Amino acid sequence: MHKWKIGIVGASGYSGEELCAILSRHPQVEVVCLTSRQHVGKTVSQVFPRFVKRGNFGELKFIEPSIEALVSSKADVFFLALPHGKAAEFAAPLIEAGKRVIDISADFRVHKPEVYEEFYGEKHPAPQLLPQSVYGLPEIYREELKKTKLVASPGCYPTSILLPLVPLLKAGLIEPDSIIVSSMSGVSGAGRKAEIPFLFVECNESTRAYGTPKHRHLSEIEQELSAAAKQQIIISFTPHLIPLNRGIHSTIYVRPAAGVSAGRIEEALKAAYANEHFVRVGSELPDIKNVSNTNYCDIAVRHDVRTGRVILFSAIDNLVKGASGQAVQSMNLMAGFEETTALL
Amino acid sequence: MHKWKIGIVGASGYSGEELCAILSRHPQVEVVCLTSRQHVGKTVSQVFPRFVKRGNFGELKFIEPSIEALVSSKADVFFLALPHGKAAEFAAPLIEAGKRVIDISADFRVHKPEVYEEFYGEKHPAPQLLPQSVYGLPEIYREELKKTKLVASPGCYPTSILLPLVPLLKAGLIEPDSIIVSSMSGVSGAGRKAEIPFLFVECNESTRAYGTPKHRHLSEIEQELSAAAKQQIIISFTPHLIPLNRGIHSTIYVRPAAGVSAGRIEEALKAAYANEHFVRVGSELPDIKNVSNTNYCDIAVRHDVRTGRVILFSAIDNLVKGASGQAVQSMNLMAGFEETTALL
Amino acid sequence: MHKWKIGIVGASGYSGEELCAILSRHPQVEVVCLTSRQHVGKTVSQVFPRFVKRGNFGELKFIEPSIEALVSSKADVFFLALPHGKAAEFAAPLIEAGKRVIDISADFRVHKPEVYEEFYGEKHPAPQLLPQSVYGLPEIYREELKKTKLVASPGCYPTSILLPLVPLLKAGLIEPDSIIVSSMSGVSGAGRKAEIPFLFVECNESTRAYGTPKHRHLSEIEQELSAAAKQQIIISFTPHLIPLNRGIHSTIYVRPAAGVSAGRIEEALKAAYANEHFVRVGSELPDIKNVSNTNYCDIAVRHDVRTGRVILFSAIDNLVKGASGQAVQSMNLMAGFEETTALL
Amino acid sequence: MHKWKIGIVGASGYSGEELCAILSRHPQVEVVCLTSRQHVGKTVSQVFPRFVKRGNFGELKFIEPSIEALVSSKADVFFLALPHGKAAEFAAPLIEAGKRVIDISADFRVHKPEVYEEFYGEKHPAPQLLPQSVYGLPEIYREELKKTKLVASPGCYPTSILLPLVPLLKAGLIEPDSIIVSSMSGVSGAGRKAEIPFLFVECNESTRAYGTPKHRHLSEIEQELSAAAKQQIIISFTPHLIPLNRGIHSTIYVRPAAGVSAGRIEEALKAAYANEHFVRVGSELPDIKNVSNTNYCDIAVRHDVRTGRVILFSAIDNLVKGASGQAVQSMNLMAGFEETTALL
Repeated sequence: MHKWKIGIVGASGYSGEELCAILSRHPQVEVVCLTSRQHVGKTVSQVFPRFVKRGNFGELKFIEPSIEALVSSKADVFFLALPHGKAAEFAAPLIEAGKRVIDISADFRVHKPEVYEEFYGEKHPAPQLLPQSVYGLPEIYREELKKTKLVASPGCYPTSILLPLVPLLKAGLIEPDSIIVSSMSGVSGAGRKAEIPFLFVECNESTRAYGTPKHRHLSEIEQELSAAAKQQIIISFTPHLIPLNRGIHSTIYVRPAAGVSAGRIEEALKAAYANEHFVRVGSELPDIKNVSNTNYCDIAVRHDVRTGRVILFSAIDNLVKGASGQAVQSMNLMAGFEETTALL
Repeated sequence: MHKWKIGIVGASGYSGEELCAILSRHPQVEVVCLTSRQHVGKTVSQVFPRFVKRGNFGELKFIEPSIEALVSSKADVFFLALPHGKAAEFAAPLIEAGKRVIDISADFRVHKPEVYEEFYGEKHPAPQLLPQSVYGLPEIYREELKKTKLVASPGCYPTSILLPLVPLLKAGLIEPDSIIVSSMSGVSGAGRKAEIPFLFVECNESTRAYGTPKHRHLSEIEQELSAAAKQQIIISFTPHLIPLNRGIHSTIYVRPAAGVSAGRIEEALKAAYANEHFVRVGSELPDIKNVSNTNYCDIAVRHDVRTGRVILFSAIDNLVKGASGQAVQSMNLMAGFEETTALL
Repeated sequence: MHKWKIGIVGASGYSGEELCAILSRHPQVEVVCLTSRQHVGKTVSQVFPRFVKRGNFGELKFIEPSIEALVSSKADVFFLALPHGKAAEFAAPLIEAGKRVIDISADFRVHKPEVYEEFYGEKHPAPQLLPQSVYGLPEIYREELKKTKLVASPGCYPTSILLPLVPLLKAGLIEPDSIIVSSMSGVSGAGRKAEIPFLFVECNESTRAYGTPKHRHLSEIEQELSAAAKQQIIISFTPHLIPLNRGIHSTIYVRPAAGVSAGRIEEALKAAYANEHFVRVGSELPDIKNVSNTNYCDIAVRHDVRTGRVILFSAIDNLVKGASGQAVQSMNLMAGFEETTALL
Repeated sequence: MHKWKIGIVGASGYSGEELCAILSRHPQVEVVCLTSRQHVGKTVSQVFPRFVKRGNFGELKFIEPSIEALVSSKADVFFLALPHGKAAEFAAPLIEAGKRVIDISADFRVHKPEVYEEFYGEKHPAPQLLPQSVYGLPEIYREELKKTKLVASPGCYPTSILLPLVPLLKAGLIEPDSIIVSSMSGVSGAGRKAEIPFLFVECNESTRAYGTPKHRHLSEIEQELSAAAKQQIIISFTPHLIPLNRGIHSTIYVRPAAGVSAGRIEEALKAAYANEHFVRVGSELPDIKNVSNTNYCDIAVRHDVRTGRVILFSAIDNLVKGASGQAVQSMNLMAGFEETTALL
């Protein structure tokens, strides 16, 4: 069997490490190069002792993120686990060199450069690539993902919000201007950055909202909701930091469209995901512990009869379905592998 | 100095224990009796080793919760830290015997017995006492608390929701039907009960909504919001369980009334609490760690200009301002002590 | 490919659930029956929502733990994830009926019934089976495990203590009477039991020793250490409960035998485990997070030159290498499968 | 009542913040200056929102740590909450200017400059002050503390280790060369430093030994043990980092001296601390949660009859009895206040 050869650019953050964990158990790929500016020359095992004795993978050495070296490597596809703005610098030459790119950063998620600029505060670094990028939510863009060379893998919050809402907006079942989202994220969502607010003592026995009311992820969330609704959607969204390593839980308040019952909303969601392996619409309220370390998204629906609102709940692992797992799911589609390969 | 003599009925749960901690450092009171059915005959120190060498308090023995014994004890005031339904059984004879009662349970919070029955699923156990009970939120009912003999100390979620909303509804600054609340609570909110869902392993690295959409606390929340607004208020409220011991954080979405700016809402809150020691309206988003182990409530306001909504944030310690601290604050008022005595 | 058919008796505790997770990704087995007294008639998915859409496995229904039903089932091998004393009741008739048994309880770990009685406080329930049981530590008893029909899978603490010590005692490198062990365990080690001391609030921000100085696991630890040393070994062992879900960390103090250097001890351990996939002797101090959710045991050695002692450190996941993972490793050996199959 | 005027140098770390919390409720002191290089010009409340509305204290502004400004301030006593090496730079001129100094760093704990150099890797910065410094363990040096102008407040691990061992060594009850200590510390022990290993995600669900076998605290531990034993004591000591904010737990293995029973050891400890408010020798094994946020040290004794060893257990809050609480206890002695004032 021919194995796909993989490069990982920026492999030392939490998403990069999770990508390593997933790919190390993927039977049809071979990681051939990893970059990490700070760990050049060290092996994966030296930096992450958890990869010792995990095949040959742990013996691979981190190299400088030199575009030249990457372009001339044997990799068929590159995962970019870099800060926004930075990823595009690599994507452009790699695409040009005929490589495929799966970008876990935010650089290619938003179609309009001016929206990127509004939310990220800087000019888009490679607007010419935007038309060919596909938003990497396989449950929505599966066919497009099979054909593209550039995947913009979604953010963690967006994944947890779009999966419950997109089918409902597509079917016109909810009032488009009624959407309010309260989300909670584990601390790995902040990345492996040496900053005081993310120290153990600052996060443990602590909980706080942040990035409100205009979090960057709103740009991609509203783009995709608007595409589903075929009209401009603006929502309220509040992220909160809670003391756990992994996981995102979103609670979403909506008003049903006139004449639509909560039961119909639940049925629509069940129907939409009946054949999706990684999305489970159930009767129990989602709990992060049921999805952590997996690529699943759990969803439930409740009817608040007293106010007429419907409340949607979702839970994912932010590093798996919200980042690296979903990116591998897209890669599996791209490569024609079984979509669930290596995903728990 | 004459000391107030205190009885604590049901002293072995988390609220009871916190009450013991607060009262053990109160210079103007003396705890004279404590009950705990399961620990009869043991000293406070034997059950809670943290009270060893904390004055004579630790040497006090738990007695049976016999109404006769309580009535004939020297206590001037009784704190009831019992399950709902149970508290009323003690409140009635104690009040009749001329004792004062501060009930931490839900039994006397709701004025209308039929609302109690709707939300708690059983007939109100002592409706004749409802007219004389005062809802123990000192920032709202300070004068009434000074005079009453029966305090219904508020629930934890209600405290975190009412403090930000009541002044705004009183002043007509927000749309009464626009209120949506997402709250997160530490696990001590579930009480010291031997139940699987509250085991460490079930809560750590876990987060889930529960008790939605009709949580019992809605009965008192809506009663007090309606009183403030002078009209019937119905809200959406979703509690979530998050992995910390103590603390409640509420995120509250509202629409300003026509012509009201977010700035005016923030000013109104600042003015309402300018002279309140325990309520702090600040510019930083509240963080549970800033209020844990204290009687403070932190509040902040944000304007979501894109949707026109205003978002209110609050944080308290569920066992202190959300239960035992607030109950002692009420007692201080009742007794004519400095309101902040023994409260950190 | 013929699949091994599996029965799991007592599948609703933490070890049982972990066993389900591991076996659900094992390509060469098929779980054909699961018992759980409390969940009879429910599917695995109903009890553990994390198993929804995980193959057909989640649709399997829990049955009564009736020996008759188990004996007449198609299962080739049974895992017993039951309390000690209980497991033997099932093991005896199953073995008699020609089934293979892998017992995760303590019932068949100790060879001498009188030692069992000393440590477990009751007569051994099936002493006639003791001679044929093999202690399920594959790194030590691999060949025996390939041939036995009854595996006594080791306890979690013992695994973390025996792996570093056995090779040293076999080689006579340490003083047999010098061994002192301080271990720390995550709370899942206490099982899924509704008991106050294991509530989130009682364990979070808490740490305590327990079960000291004569913990039950000493019976199997000292048996195996004595077998390795070919002389009677008695050790000091103190377990501590720390606030994490999974993981055991052991710190082991020993005196080198006369003339033995710390370097030689480290080399001996490296040599002993050079070809073992799941044991990693490294230079970094072990950290539980590097082994959690895996079947690895990490070990390191330090020389305390000031006192002449050598300190050994080990870390495992108590539910995987310390219980269900190791049990599956034994099953893989028994069945002639690749030893690492389904183990992360 | 004349209030003591206090200066705090380095008030923005965890010990500094805890000092602020304790002193803010001390009725006989007034904090008159605080320094923090990084927060100059900001008020305490701005940096630590938890101090808003806590008296005038929160309105105090951080100043530059200029020796001139400190010397000319009105403060009677200075707390130094600085890194080792740095504290001595301030202590020398302050002492010279007639101020009293309570140093929470390690600079004046060790009597011999060469021991300091051995363990801290640099020349002692102010050896001339060593003769006048008193080791701030009030239970051992109470009388000396009342008279000194320079207190070297003990480290957190040393406090938890010395309190159980000193009375036993003084009385000759244990073998001096038999001492082995395994300690566990919460993450606040690492300080408020922006470093990757202390991020939430790196510590949560993680546990590891570190700083072994020659941790810096051994210098003061062995000095004080040797003073108690009147002979040179060398011990084995292993610290571990566990996922909680606050607390240290030490498990100490010793051999009783010939003819000494475990019972006599326990009695000796009970007698030694019978009149000490903050040391509790009990029958229950210590649990960090019983001492957190307090100045207590809990101790228990167990006899390991199988090996003849005695095991001592202790628990403290590393930021209170292990740092700032103990420093205030020393200040209370110095100033002639009630020793327990402001300490919970």
